[in-house]
Amino acid sequence: MAKVHVTDVVLRDGHQSLIATRMRTDDMLPICSKLDAVGYWSLEAWGGATFDACVRYLREDPWERLKKLRKALPNSRLQMLLRGQNLLGYRHYSDDVVRAFVQKSADNGIDVFRIFDAMNDLRNLKVSIESVKAVGKHAEGTISYTTSPVHDIPYFVNLAKELESFGCDTIAIKDMASLLTPEITGELVKALREAVSLPIHLHAHATSGLASMSIQRAVDNGVAIVDGCISSFAEGASLPTTESIVAALKGTEYDTGLDIGLLQEISAYFREVRKKYWQFESEFTGVDTRVLVNQVPGGMISNLSNQLKEQGALDRMDAVLDEIPRVREDLGYPPLVTPTSQIVGTQAVLNVMTGARYKSVTNEVKNYLLGHYGKAPSTVNSDVRSLAVGNAEVIECRPADLLTAEMEKLRNEVEGLAKSEEDVLTYAMFPDLAKTFLQERNAGTLKPEPLLDKEAVTSSESHSRF
Amino acid sequence: MAKVHVTDVVLRDGHQSLIATRMRTDDMLPICSKLDAVGYWSLEAWGGATFDACVRYLREDPWERLKKLRKALPNSRLQMLLRGQNLLGYRHYSDDVVRAFVQKSADNGIDVFRIFDAMNDLRNLKVSIESVKAVGKHAEGTISYTTSPVHDIPYFVNLAKELESFGCDTIAIKDMASLLTPEITGELVKALREAVSLPIHLHAHATSGLASMSIQRAVDNGVAIVDGCISSFAEGASLPTTESIVAALKGTEYDTGLDIGLLQEISAYFREVRKKYWQFESEFTGVDTRVLVNQVPGGMISNLSNQLKEQGALDRMDAVLDEIPRVREDLGYPPLVTPTSQIVGTQAVLNVMTGARYKSVTNEVKNYLLGHYGKAPSTVNSDVRSLAVGNAEVIECRPADLLTAEMEKLRNEVEGLAKSEEDVLTYAMFPDLAKTFLQERNAGTLKPEPLLDKEAVTSSESHSRF
Ligand SMILES: [Co+2]
Ligand SMILES: [Co+2]
Repeated sequence: MAKVHVTDVVLRDGHQSLIATRMRTDDMLPICSKLDAVGYWSLEAWGGATFDACVRYLREDPWERLKKLRKALPNSRLQMLLRGQNLLGYRHYSDDVVRAFVQKSADNGIDVFRIFDAMNDLRNLKVSIESVKAVGKHAEGTISYTTSPVHDIPYFVNLAKELESFGCDTIAIKDMASLLTPEITGELVKALREAVSLPIHLHAHATSGLASMSIQRAVDNGVAIVDGCISSFAEGASLPTTESIVAALKGTEYDTGLDIGLLQEISAYFREVRKKYWQFESEFTGVDTRVLVNQVPGGMISNLSNQLKEQGALDRMDAVLDEIPRVREDLGYPPLVTPTSQIVGTQAVLNVMTGARYKSVTNEVKNYLLGHYGKAPSTVNSDVRSLAVGNAEVIECRPADLLTAEMEKLRNEVEGLAKSEEDVLTYAMFPDLAKTFLQERNAGTLKPEPLLDKEAVTSSESHSRF
Repeated sequence: MAKVHVTDVVLRDGHQSLIATRMRTDDMLPICSKLDAVGYWSLEAWGGATFDACVRYLREDPWERLKKLRKALPNSRLQMLLRGQNLLGYRHYSDDVVRAFVQKSADNGIDVFRIFDAMNDLRNLKVSIESVKAVGKHAEGTISYTTSPVHDIPYFVNLAKELESFGCDTIAIKDMASLLTPEITGELVKALREAVSLPIHLHAHATSGLASMSIQRAVDNGVAIVDGCISSFAEGASLPTTESIVAALKGTEYDTGLDIGLLQEISAYFREVRKKYWQFESEFTGVDTRVLVNQVPGGMISNLSNQLKEQGALDRMDAVLDEIPRVREDLGYPPLVTPTSQIVGTQAVLNVMTGARYKSVTNEVKNYLLGHYGKAPSTVNSDVRSLAVGNAEVIECRPADLLTAEMEKLRNEVEGLAKSEEDVLTYAMFPDLAKTFLQERNAGTLKPEPLLDKEAVTSSESHSRF
């Protein structure tokens, strides 16, 4: 009865967090029969950055990946991560594109849609949730967790209630930045359980080293499903270790029932796979608690550090880390997740590098201040808004309300190249990339970016020692 | 009142677990003023394998290290790990050597002595505990945690009661193999708290990914002190992350009171230090739950794998992993820790490689079966004993009762080389090593083993790519 269920994210978030989303379908398929036998509640296997990485780097058709995984995992729920009205792209789409994307994802094998919005603006979630329900699949409404003066437990409880009213089947707490402490997790899960009747699903990244403790408190307070990752792709920027969660709960009233021996076989497989992608590993894969002090997620820090390095200004890193919370406050405390993490981070770099705050303002910040991403969680700094966009009118409606149906237009634009509705949707996500991608795919000339051979490096390494 | 105290192990167990005990004193001293300001309950900084590594690889005088650390950490309790009657060597010493070693350790700066025995044979702990109390220092009696049909909670409670009766000031639970689950930890701490009035100190390695959850349950049940390691030397085979423990308890009734900002400065320092020692890193530093299934600690697996590799028999690894629990059972279920882990592991390899169990028996196993390491936790297999040592008499007394005072003899043996009582003790620990070491030290010709330069490797690496 009290059994805790487990979602494993190795096929999506695990490699997205640790090796820049580079795992190829060919490295997933050989282990699928074992994954399929585990008895997970679901396998997160698609969406997030995988669609982009497939098209951009791996030169794989993401829809083909989904079909292959569906076939190889006949007994498992396949789960995807969907950015609400942004789908898997980087802008808001019209509702007909959202409906078509959900339809095709379901047709090709997705069972569970985890749907979030960077602003927690429920208007950006509503159409995708309704589309999922319309095709008879599982809609998981998601709370993007963050901390700020407005992000308290009643705020999140209210979100959950609204998501329930939209027809969601489960509620996910998404702690992408690894900010949740065990104590807050316990309180939050308890409050959500009291307020809604839906099962609660916890997704807490391990970066700050708190996630397994938070899971424990979540379980104590009645969480239904927890996310983990098989050990060889777990911890650090990824999720806590599935095997450890299973072992921790074994023999208790919350026993997951999963076979730890089978999980170890799967882990051994992925440990070998991970070696192939060594070039994408970060230098340090341990615990990093800096986010708890400066609120800047680990992934954002490494992006910023690359950005500053290119400008020869790595010495300004501390100034940028100090500026980020100020920019976030100016923008009304958005959670820092795609795309708001990039919006806030890039503006903070500009503010530091130009030496005058908001002297130069990115288009993304302008659009944000005009309401094009949705409603900010708290009040936006009106001085900053004046500086950035003057008296331009701020939209109050749902951003997608300004968009007219666009599937027909997209179909026309990519006519001749697209062989299916799926191809049209690929084009919708990444227009420039997709044209070349579809051309090459049709011509049979797709080639993945090459992987560096560590053997070669190692042999030259030992050579240099003597 | 309920405040939880923290011991940080970065100066001892952290680098022992992750970079083969290679951290040099020069890399410790620059950060000591910050470490000293944290307000830890203690800093584990000496003993364990550090003494050996100083003499063997770093070519540093371990007593000089201790003096320097003492001076650099004037406000901190310095803690050492002591293997009972084995001290820091690999045999049993006579009581006068034990007393002298404890005296000199105290004189040079140790405040807290964590004392354990691989067999949990209390007779092997008594003299060192009494010596610590005689010099007015803190004696921490230690339970070497393991699992077996005889190692249940009443067994450990009984050990703790005896340790209390010996005059110990605290009781440590030492989970070197990372076997503790959160549930058992909670039960064990609760039972110990009910049975003894001493504060309980938890040392649980992170290998299996359970330690931070176990700490949480320990705290729930009244543990007084927990061991962590600063993040840049934490997790994997090391201890769980200090900053995460501090963050998890912050604002709760168990708040450690430590400043996470200061801890992050310390972590940033050690992150750079760790890079210097890259050649000693293991390939995989993540969570490994195999110990929960086969009871073989992670460190033992890597040693065995090296042993088998040298014999060109890496394909026998699974057979060896299956044989280890059988050998352990034959020997009456000793916990697997120095030196029993080596004793059991080497015999298991022999049993597999010779193709006939106990056809060849190591001297260590013979001595073990003759009682020279102390009393086995459970009954020894009498067939195995007959095979190994025939009808030879098994000693029933404390092994060290068979030893006569030896300090005088040691002094004579190393006369001319030893400049102090400390030097005599160094010689007592590692007679062969120490002679050369003292000679070279006296001549001023000590040279540490060289560190490989990663820069050189990296430049040749990028060269090989093009
Ligand atoms: Co995630
Ligand atoms: Co240890």
